[in-house]
Amino acid sequence: MAVVKINPERLLSDLDTLRGFGRTGTGVVRPAFTKPDLEARQWVARRMADAGLNPVFDPAGNLFGLPDGDGPFFLTGSHTDSQPEGGWLDGAYGVIAGLEAARAIAEAGGPPVAVVSFQDEEGRFGMITGSQVWSGLITMDEADALTDANGVTFSEARKDIEGWHSGTLLPPSLFTGFLEAHIEQGPNLDLAKEAIGVVEMIVGTREFTVTYRGETNHAGTTPMTNRRDAVQGMAAFASKLDERLRNVVVPSTVWTIGRVSVEPNASSIVPGKVSFSMQWRDGDSDRLARMDRIIRDLVAETAEAMNLEMELSNFHGLEPVPMDAALADHVADAAQAHAPGRWRRMPSGALHDATNVASVLPVAMMFVPSIGGISHSFQEDTARDDLVVGAEVLASAVAACAGFSP
Amino acid sequence: MAVVKINPERLLSDLDTLRGFGRTGTGVVRPAFTKPDLEARQWVARRMADAGLNPVFDPAGNLFGLPDGDGPFFLTGSHTDSQPEGGWLDGAYGVIAGLEAARAIAEAGGPPVAVVSFQDEEGRFGMITGSQVWSGLITMDEADALTDANGVTFSEARKDIEGWHSGTLLPPSLFTGFLEAHIEQGPNLDLAKEAIGVVEMIVGTREFTVTYRGETNHAGTTPMTNRRDAVQGMAAFASKLDERLRNVVVPSTVWTIGRVSVEPNASSIVPGKVSFSMQWRDGDSDRLARMDRIIRDLVAETAEAMNLEMELSNFHGLEPVPMDAALADHVADAAQAHAPGRWRRMPSGALHDATNVASVLPVAMMFVPSIGGISHSFQEDTARDDLVVGAEVLASAVAACAGFSP
Repeated sequence: MAVVKINPERLLSDLDTLRGFGRTGTGVVRPAFTKPDLEARQWVARRMADAGLNPVFDPAGNLFGLPDGDGPFFLTGSHTDSQPEGGWLDGAYGVIAGLEAARAIAEAGGPPVAVVSFQDEEGRFGMITGSQVWSGLITMDEADALTDANGVTFSEARKDIEGWHSGTLLPPSLFTGFLEAHIEQGPNLDLAKEAIGVVEMIVGTREFTVTYRGETNHAGTTPMTNRRDAVQGMAAFASKLDERLRNVVVPSTVWTIGRVSVEPNASSIVPGKVSFSMQWRDGDSDRLARMDRIIRDLVAETAEAMNLEMELSNFHGLEPVPMDAALADHVADAAQAHAPGRWRRMPSGALHDATNVASVLPVAMMFVPSIGGISHSFQEDTARDDLVVGAEVLASAVAACAGFSP
Repeated sequence: MAVVKINPERLLSDLDTLRGFGRTGTGVVRPAFTKPDLEARQWVARRMADAGLNPVFDPAGNLFGLPDGDGPFFLTGSHTDSQPEGGWLDGAYGVIAGLEAARAIAEAGGPPVAVVSFQDEEGRFGMITGSQVWSGLITMDEADALTDANGVTFSEARKDIEGWHSGTLLPPSLFTGFLEAHIEQGPNLDLAKEAIGVVEMIVGTREFTVTYRGETNHAGTTPMTNRRDAVQGMAAFASKLDERLRNVVVPSTVWTIGRVSVEPNASSIVPGKVSFSMQWRDGDSDRLARMDRIIRDLVAETAEAMNLEMELSNFHGLEPVPMDAALADHVADAAQAHAPGRWRRMPSGALHDATNVASVLPVAMMFVPSIGGISHSFQEDTARDDLVVGAEVLASAVAACAGFSP
């Protein structure tokens, strides 16, 4: 394991500067293709050039910093766009720590490393759009048709970079693999006072919408025994779910009813209809499928018991994405070198650019702690010591992934 | 018991004509002060005049048909405004059956009877607004400040009748009592194949809004054991409620969670906040209070168990309103005369104009069946035979209430 020495002041200074673009309180407002996002990308491009990398915008807005030469290069990075109300480190940390890793490895006489800031990871338009286009999972035309909440299309938004971009997407064959550093966005590392999470896989997700239909009635004149109350159906389902799943799930499995819509939604009317989202995530495809059966059975059993009609719609699923074992082992070795005994292997419950990139390159990911597990919020933060340790681990791991053995 | 003979064809013909104002499919769209409502009121005024009554609009839009002379008169009627999507008989039946009763009693040589169509019973602006103003429960100024869902004030809406109205409210002392006929809006009479409900009391209502606050979090990265999920709190509360109330309630008691609002309401976010309405109705004040304690205890117990913060707001209560025993006995006698063995005494689970009028006059109510218990819907209907029997009972009961003993 080559231990690469980084420059903590340069790392933290660059992170603080990037935080200035779209800064709002302690967080940032920097969604893809907004003015602060484009200004941030231009600044990152200049910092890439300062580091001896050649900044290249592709037509989707992804920004690559390419070393001189033909490659192939090892790639690291993340994204610099934010949620509508985002934290200062979500994505930004992986880009700046990646840039610091490239600089530190070069200074150590190591191999050239490429850095990327993907565009629209936070889904102003679609879902992890920039890396999805770059990985060929959707076409540029498909991306162009995506709209944001105000009806602006991806096609319209990316007109602002027409003068800058290279005209074509860079071929994945230009790279040998991808390692993404990211904040955990969950509480596990923080609770355990650990410094590094070595991601084993990005969990799979399944989701559908459950609709129960009963009968809309007057809440004063309809006897309890004559009611077909859709909200009571949802409550019965939701209150039994944990117990039904108990024998199938593991501590990292999660399931959520996050969206509920009631009709007609008035206090004096027995509600005749409810729709709610049912989402579950796990790293194991078989477990996702076993949960699917249990959930469907409980939806149907509750409908039957409460005399409701049921409907399932808006199915949506993503299979778990395993990380490349060899790359993940390099991350584990680096974690043990820089934070001995203060790291763990763990799944990623959130999606990341690495999810898409895994379809074209060997991929690994690593996490640094999120204080209180808070994310997608101005309150998101990570201790500065943890930011430094994370960048050290990333630099050493990238060096190993790039074949550096000094 | 004086049995008054009505004219069924005239009754049904007037009901069918009134149905034409705002007719939509099998129902009506005739909210207070809309064009169809005002046209319907002008037509009712003409039919009052045809019956020898003097139509008088008051400044709140209530339409009275007054006999010649100084009175005091017995009063019958209901309302002709509708829900945004209303049935053809809700309110309209009590006005037309009341008009038919007045006509039939006059033709039988009985005492003069006054008829009323109150305004905005269906709460476009407030709640049973017209009879509330007339009964002095709110002032005209208070009513004027009420707004509809589009921000139109009662004050603005009633400008359309400025040229028609009498300028002042009629004094309650002009009347000796009030009997209102109405569709049941519930399934009890229809299920029992009975023709008449003699209302014993209008039930009381209590309502508040429960808010549970937990923690909004990422649905992929937040372990189940770290969650404070507000929707799960609501589900736990709702699923235990029936069991907790079981030993306190009677078959006519009702309770309803009709309105639910979740934040941020997205499938990938653990919901940090839910607000829901909790309403219950019963004819007994003590039972309402016992339910109140049980419900509050369960709200608090659930908050504690689920690690949520709780808040109760928007308290709203109406005490049960008993009907005048002597007037109700006249209705029971008339029901036994016209529909022997096919009537019952029962509470009214819905509010009616009679609720307000009871604060200034002796009041009684009677119901005819609602097919399938359906109301506040275009599908609302009552068998034509039941409409005729109901008007016969109303006419005989009003005659008795007005002191007619031929």
